[in-house]
Amino acid sequence: MGPHPAVAAIRLAVRRVLHDVLTEHDTGDEPLVLVACSGGADSMALASALAFEARKLPVRAGGITVDHGLQHGSDTRADDVAGRMTALGLTPVEAVAVTVGREGGPEAAARDARYAALDAAAERHGAAAVLLGHTRDDQAETVLLGLARGSGIRSLSGMAAVSGAAGRYRRPFLQLDRQTVRKACVAQELAVWDDPHNSDPAYTRSRLRHEGLPALEKALGKGVVEALARTAQLSRDDADALDTWAADAETSVRDEAGALECAKLFGLPPAVRRRVLRRAVIAEGAPAGSLFARHIEEVDRLITGWRGQGAINLPGRVEARRQGGRLVIRQG
Amino acid sequence: MGPHPAVAAIRLAVRRVLHDVLTEHDTGDEPLVLVACSGGADSMALASALAFEARKLPVRAGGITVDHGLQHGSDTRADDVAGRMTALGLTPVEAVAVTVGREGGPEAAARDARYAALDAAAERHGAAAVLLGHTRDDQAETVLLGLARGSGIRSLSGMAAVSGAAGRYRRPFLQLDRQTVRKACVAQELAVWDDPHNSDPAYTRSRLRHEGLPALEKALGKGVVEALARTAQLSRDDADALDTWAADAETSVRDEAGALECAKLFGLPPAVRRRVLRRAVIAEGAPAGSLFARHIEEVDRLITGWRGQGAINLPGRVEARRQGGRLVIRQG
Repeated sequence: MGPHPAVAAIRLAVRRVLHDVLTEHDTGDEPLVLVACSGGADSMALASALAFEARKLPVRAGGITVDHGLQHGSDTRADDVAGRMTALGLTPVEAVAVTVGREGGPEAAARDARYAALDAAAERHGAAAVLLGHTRDDQAETVLLGLARGSGIRSLSGMAAVSGAAGRYRRPFLQLDRQTVRKACVAQELAVWDDPHNSDPAYTRSRLRHEGLPALEKALGKGVVEALARTAQLSRDDADALDTWAADAETSVRDEAGALECAKLFGLPPAVRRRVLRRAVIAEGAPAGSLFARHIEEVDRLITGWRGQGAINLPGRVEARRQGGRLVIRQG
Repeated sequence: MGPHPAVAAIRLAVRRVLHDVLTEHDTGDEPLVLVACSGGADSMALASALAFEARKLPVRAGGITVDHGLQHGSDTRADDVAGRMTALGLTPVEAVAVTVGREGGPEAAARDARYAALDAAAERHGAAAVLLGHTRDDQAETVLLGLARGSGIRSLSGMAAVSGAAGRYRRPFLQLDRQTVRKACVAQELAVWDDPHNSDPAYTRSRLRHEGLPALEKALGKGVVEALARTAQLSRDDADALDTWAADAETSVRDEAGALECAKLFGLPPAVRRRVLRRAVIAEGAPAGSLFARHIEEVDRLITGWRGQGAINLPGRVEARRQGGRLVIRQG
């Protein structure tokens, strides 16, 4: 008798990623693959599948759990999660304590601290890859969060299956639904820990998960999560292609002195022109995160709606003005 | 004392569109602009603003109301709506009865019948433009409906401000929120009719309006409608740019005999390649409406994941196969 279908599904997903890692790994030794594990159902399922599959392949499998220090007793829990990973046969296993700052709100600050710790752990252990337990449902939530920013298709493209420096982070479960992953935990009798943050309505993602997305499914039908995940992939490819185009176009719209020519900018499709403008503004020192669609639209009007308007002030003390048929962007 | 701010807002929106129509109108006579009016708040506000603004401009203003014949007494109501438009000073005014078919479900069938009737009325009266009362909230709903299809950024681009043959249809309220438009009705003491379909949970759009979108706003904050509308505009521009690229690329990937070369297709960015493939499949007779992302992905694997697979069957009896380094697409 084979494994439970859910267990088979999570193992297949991990096996595929391990094959990718092995294909890309070109030194003679066995690559180390770490799982980032919170002790929650998704990442415990991932840890179990990694432990199982790594035994059959020339791969070493270890695990990292991050103690965010945000709840009383979180250190004990991190040790407990590390113990469970060791029990699964993973080695090395490490519990890393981090200090969560405040920048960007509680969710962003925790995420930043977590990834910094995972990056450091991957370097320390010489890991070829770090597996993350994000599921298709997490992806759908991420797309909706991006949608709420209204800043275009890049923010709709969710999480990548492969990301980070040298493709370090891999998300084997990105096309698996959460329910399958949870079933795999039950079928394997894995003890899991429910992070109270996941159901705390103070967190946007939690409200989205427990109220927003179910209401959307009720209105639009059960396929919404899948549709959002597909939207992520299509948007990512589209955004990549347009970024490539904009990078090419940027050289073609500059004169010999490197100045942006308004007439040539005018000839670009709006989607490409706005990306060229965004690149140019960022290159002069505007922080990408503070630069919104409305800023770029205002700069764009120097090209498409020229009526003698003055300099446009942009984040990072960058200003854009039109001067003698050229668009001059510089930091003040 | 000026008009109520909401009334000023709807008039300004209509005035801008009338200026566009006048700018584009190159014959000597006064253009006729029709409003499509259901008697609901949005289109009654539109009718009132059109009547008001047209008096000050070299524009003739009329109105059409469509009787879908779906409810008992709909003919009487259509006559009543026509009477209200006449009372506003619009002329010509016409109530047109249509027969709603069944194709594509009740909402799509009603929409198809309505636009066919509006097209015919515009031709009959020689109208330069037909104004539609869609608001930013309608746009947000349309984006979510597109999102639920999961078929990429074209379906996220919602409704265009200008659409139809020769840009006949104009949507002056596409950047105004529904609440402002409703306030303008109240401020002008316009009697409006609430279409029971708009609150009938049997209709997807109605469920979205009354349950899905409010829940999403609760989770993500009040800016969701605006973010969705901005996503529509950005997605539309992006989709247009990528379509242009794909049209250019399609000629460059064909050999002298016009066959698609797999090696050249492989060199395109995925987003562009998939659009080239979609164009090629539609050109051979596949109906665009039945062609889903998964079909194109399968054809794409003939290029990116070639392992000797057989012909791919596509809607409209079109098949795609790889043969001697060429992609052969033809109708069987």
